[in-house]
Amino acid sequence: MNADYLRLRERLAEVQDLGSAQALLEWDQRTMMPARGSAARAEALATVVKLGFERFASDEVGALLDALGPWAEALPYDSDEASLVRVTRREYDKARRVPVTLKAEIARTAAIAGDAWIEARKASDYAAFRPHLERIVALRREYAACLAARGTDPYDALLDDYEPGFTAAAAARMFEALKVGLVPLLGRIRERAGALDEGVLAGRFPADRQRAFCLDVMRAIGFDDDGFRLDVSAHPFETRMAAGDVRMTTRYDEGRLADALFGCIHELGHGLYESGVDPALARTPLDHGTSMGIHESQSRLWENVVGRGLPFWRFFYPRLQQAFPEPFAGLSLERFWRAINAVRPSLIRVEADEVTYNLHVLLRFELERALIGGDLAPADLPAEWNARMREYLGVEVPDDRRGVLQDIHWSQGDFGYFPTYTLGNVIASQLWERATAEVPGLEAAIEAGDFAPLRRWLHAAIHHHGAKFTGEELLARVTGRGADPAPYLAYLDAKFAAVYGG
Amino acid sequence: MNADYLRLRERLAEVQDLGSAQALLEWDQRTMMPARGSAARAEALATVVKLGFERFASDEVGALLDALGPWAEALPYDSDEASLVRVTRREYDKARRVPVTLKAEIARTAAIAGDAWIEARKASDYAAFRPHLERIVALRREYAACLAARGTDPYDALLDDYEPGFTAAAAARMFEALKVGLVPLLGRIRERAGALDEGVLAGRFPADRQRAFCLDVMRAIGFDDDGFRLDVSAHPFETRMAAGDVRMTTRYDEGRLADALFGCIHELGHGLYESGVDPALARTPLDHGTSMGIHESQSRLWENVVGRGLPFWRFFYPRLQQAFPEPFAGLSLERFWRAINAVRPSLIRVEADEVTYNLHVLLRFELERALIGGDLAPADLPAEWNARMREYLGVEVPDDRRGVLQDIHWSQGDFGYFPTYTLGNVIASQLWERATAEVPGLEAAIEAGDFAPLRRWLHAAIHHHGAKFTGEELLARVTGRGADPAPYLAYLDAKFAAVYGG
Repeated sequence: MNADYLRLRERLAEVQDLGSAQALLEWDQRTMMPARGSAARAEALATVVKLGFERFASDEVGALLDALGPWAEALPYDSDEASLVRVTRREYDKARRVPVTLKAEIARTAAIAGDAWIEARKASDYAAFRPHLERIVALRREYAACLAARGTDPYDALLDDYEPGFTAAAAARMFEALKVGLVPLLGRIRERAGALDEGVLAGRFPADRQRAFCLDVMRAIGFDDDGFRLDVSAHPFETRMAAGDVRMTTRYDEGRLADALFGCIHELGHGLYESGVDPALARTPLDHGTSMGIHESQSRLWENVVGRGLPFWRFFYPRLQQAFPEPFAGLSLERFWRAINAVRPSLIRVEADEVTYNLHVLLRFELERALIGGDLAPADLPAEWNARMREYLGVEVPDDRRGVLQDIHWSQGDFGYFPTYTLGNVIASQLWERATAEVPGLEAAIEAGDFAPLRRWLHAAIHHHGAKFTGEELLARVTGRGADPAPYLAYLDAKFAAVYGG
Repeated sequence: MNADYLRLRERLAEVQDLGSAQALLEWDQRTMMPARGSAARAEALATVVKLGFERFASDEVGALLDALGPWAEALPYDSDEASLVRVTRREYDKARRVPVTLKAEIARTAAIAGDAWIEARKASDYAAFRPHLERIVALRREYAACLAARGTDPYDALLDDYEPGFTAAAAARMFEALKVGLVPLLGRIRERAGALDEGVLAGRFPADRQRAFCLDVMRAIGFDDDGFRLDVSAHPFETRMAAGDVRMTTRYDEGRLADALFGCIHELGHGLYESGVDPALARTPLDHGTSMGIHESQSRLWENVVGRGLPFWRFFYPRLQQAFPEPFAGLSLERFWRAINAVRPSLIRVEADEVTYNLHVLLRFELERALIGGDLAPADLPAEWNARMREYLGVEVPDDRRGVLQDIHWSQGDFGYFPTYTLGNVIASQLWERATAEVPGLEAAIEAGDFAPLRRWLHAAIHHHGAKFTGEELLARVTGRGADPAPYLAYLDAKFAAVYGG
C-alpha cells in the first residue's frame, strides 16, 4: 500500500476522531447537559472544531493530496482509495479557500444571532432580529465569494456545501416543475376537503407509552439496541459518533401521537443510512451520508412513502389499536390512514403535510436566493414572505412568529439547506420506483411487517457507499438519471387521489 | 497582565477543553453509549488524549513556564497566577520525564489487562491474570524510575500522582497508628456483635423509588438540577466537564437500599467539590479537586460522618419511612441507625463498614508497595493476600474472585491509589473537627435538614481553591497540621461505642 496514502488516512482518522468528539459534545448539549454547563461546552466545542480544522486544512494534508493525485487517478473511480483522495481533495480545497477568520466570524455571529432569533421569535419581533440577519447575510455573501467561480450564481456556492454540484438553476427548474403539478393537485384536494376528518386522531398519549410504541415500530424497521439510542430533545435530530453508535431524538406531545411517531421514523431513516456505511470507510471523511438531499431521501422515504402508506398500517394498525385503545379501538384502518395523510395549507413548515411542504420550501428557496444574490434586502423580507404565503398556500400570516421567524436556519447562516428538503422528497420517489421494480413483493413484505427487503436494497444501493459518490453520482448509479420530479408528482397524485377519493 | 501568562493560559485552556471532551467521551461510554460504539470510542479517546498531551507537554509551554518563573515567584504564593505557574510547572516536568512511548504502552497494557481481569475474576482464575499483572507491575516500576529521585522509594513516585508529596513512609506511619487503634476497637465491637441486627434493613426497594429518594436527599444536601446529573452505571463514579456540569452515577440493587443511597451521598461529596471550584480558575489546570486524598475526604465526610450520623437521620428517617413504609414503618430510628452502621469483617472492600475498611486498604498498601519495590513477586500475591486477610480481619478467603481479584485498580496500573482512600477518611475527621469548632450549631443545622452551613464552610476551606494548593498545603492552611489519624480514631471510638453501646 502507498505509504503517503496510509499517512493521509492516519491524519484523516484523527480528524474524524475529533469529529466524533464534536458530535458527542453537541448531542450531549441537546439531550443531557445540565444548563450551567453551556458556557464551558461552547468553549470545548470551539477548541475541538478548531483543532480538527487545523489538522485537516494543514499543509501536510495538502502535500499528501498533491503527491497522491496521479496515483489515485489511475485507480478505479469507485475504489475506496480513489474516492478518498478525490473527496478529500474537494473538501480540502474548499476548506483552504475560506479564511479561518471568516469562518470564526460566521460561527460567532451565528451563535449570537441564534440567541437573538429565539428572543425575537418569542416576541414576534422581526425588527429585533433584522440587524443579525443583515450581518449573517453579509457574511454568507462574503463566504460565497470565496468559493464561487467567476460569473456563477453566488448561491451555488452555498448549495454546494449541502449538496455538492447542485445549482440554483437546477433547483429553480425542480421547483418550477413541482409548482406546475402541486398547485392543481392542491386545488383538487381543497374541493374534497370534507372527505376526511383529522379530528379522529385526537386523544391522550402518555409519553412513556408513545416511546414504547415508537421503539416497537423502529425495532421492526431496523433499530438495533446495540447500535442506536433514542432520547428526547427540544428539536428532533439524528447524529452519529460512528456507524455502530447512532443517536436519534424526538419529543412527545401528549395530545398528538403523529409528531413523535413520524418524527422517529424520519430520524431512523437518517440513522439507518449512517449506520450502514461500509466499515472499511471507518475513520475516513467518507464515513457518513454523502449529501443532505440523499440523506433527506432516506428519512422521507421511510417517514412518508413507507410510514404514511397503507401497507405499513395494515401491519401496524392492530398494534397501535392495542397500544392506544382510546381513540383507535373503534376507528377503521381506512379512516385512520386518511387522517394521518390530511392535507391542510398551514403557516408552519414543520407541521406541513406531504403536498404543501414543498411550497413552504419553494418560498424559502426563492427568498434566500434573492437575499444572497442581493436582490432582496432583509428589511423587505417579512412583506415578501407574507405575499408568497398568500400566493402559494392561500394563508394569511398573522405575525412574524408564525411567519418569517419560524425557522432557525437563517439565524445560523444555513442558506442553501432548505432546497435539499424538497430534493430529498424527489429522490425518495425515484428510489422507491427503482426499489419496487427491482425487489419483487416489496409492498407485500411491508404489509407483513418485514422491512428487511427494502432495508437491504437501500443498504446496497445507497448506504454502504458512504460519501464515496456525490448525491448526483449516486442517483445516476442507481436510477440512470438525475433528480427528476416526475415520479414524485406521480406518487403524490396517486396517493392523494386515494386519500381524498371516496 | 503579563503577555506570556495570557499566552500560557490560552494554551492550557485548550488542553482543558480537550480534557472536558475526554471526560464526556468516558462518561458517555459508561452510561449511554450503545455497545457497538466501543471500538470507535476507544480510537476517539486515544486521539483526544494524545492531542491534549502534545499540546500540554510542548516546547512552547516549557518556554512560557521558563519565562514566567521569576515573575510568578515574585507574586503572592496563593495568588491565582503564582499557583497556576507553580502547579503547571510541576505537572509539566512530570509529563516530560516519562517517555510518550512508555505512557502509550501502559495505556495499551492496561486496556488488555482490564479485559483479562474481568474474565479472570469471573472464573476466579488468578493464573490467567498473573502474566498481565507481571507486565503492568514491570511497566509501573519503569514509570516510577523515570520520576523517582535517586535513593527514594519508587512507590513514592506513584503515590505522588494521586497525592502530590505523600510518601510511602508517611503512609506507613499513618497505617501503623490506625492499626494500633483499630484492632482493639474491632475486638470490642466483636464482643458486642449481638447488640444490633442488620436484618431489619431487608426489603424490596424498586429502582425508580430509590432514585427518587436518593435525589430527595441529594437535593437537600446541595445537588442542583441545573448543574448536576445522576445516571446509572455498572460501577458508580463522579466526573465533571466543568464546574457547572458535574455528573454522578449509581446503581440500584432492589434488595438493598444502602448501596445506592450512601453511594449517591459519597459521589455527591466529590461532585460538590468539583462544582465549587472558583470560576476564575475555569479552563486552567487548577480547575479541579487537588488530590485524591482531599477528594475522598469530601466524599467520606458526607457519606460517613454526615450521612451515617444520627443527626442526619433524625431529619431524614421520617421521610425514608414515608418513602418505604415496608420495612421501615415499624422500625425505630435508633435500630435503623445502628443497623446502617453495623461492623462486620468481610471479604469485599467496597462492602466494608467504616472500621474494617481501612484494614482492607492497609493490606493493599503493603502488598502493592512490596510489588513495586520488587520485594513481592506477583506469583506469591494470592498467598500473601489470604494470609493478611486472616491476620487483619480474621476472615478466610475462599477463592481469588473474592480475594486478590476483587479490585480493578491493579489491572489498570493504579498503584498508589488505595492509600488515598484511608488518607481521605483521616482528613475527613480532621476537617469535621475544624468545622464543628468554627461553625456554631453545625449538628443542629444538620438535624434540621439544613446542610448549607457545612457546605459553605467546606466551600470556603477546600472547594473554591481548586488545585492551587497540594493536599498537604491545604490541610495545613485549614487545620494547622499535617494528616493526623488521632481525630479519626477518636471519632470511630466514640461513634461505635454508641452504635454498639446498649
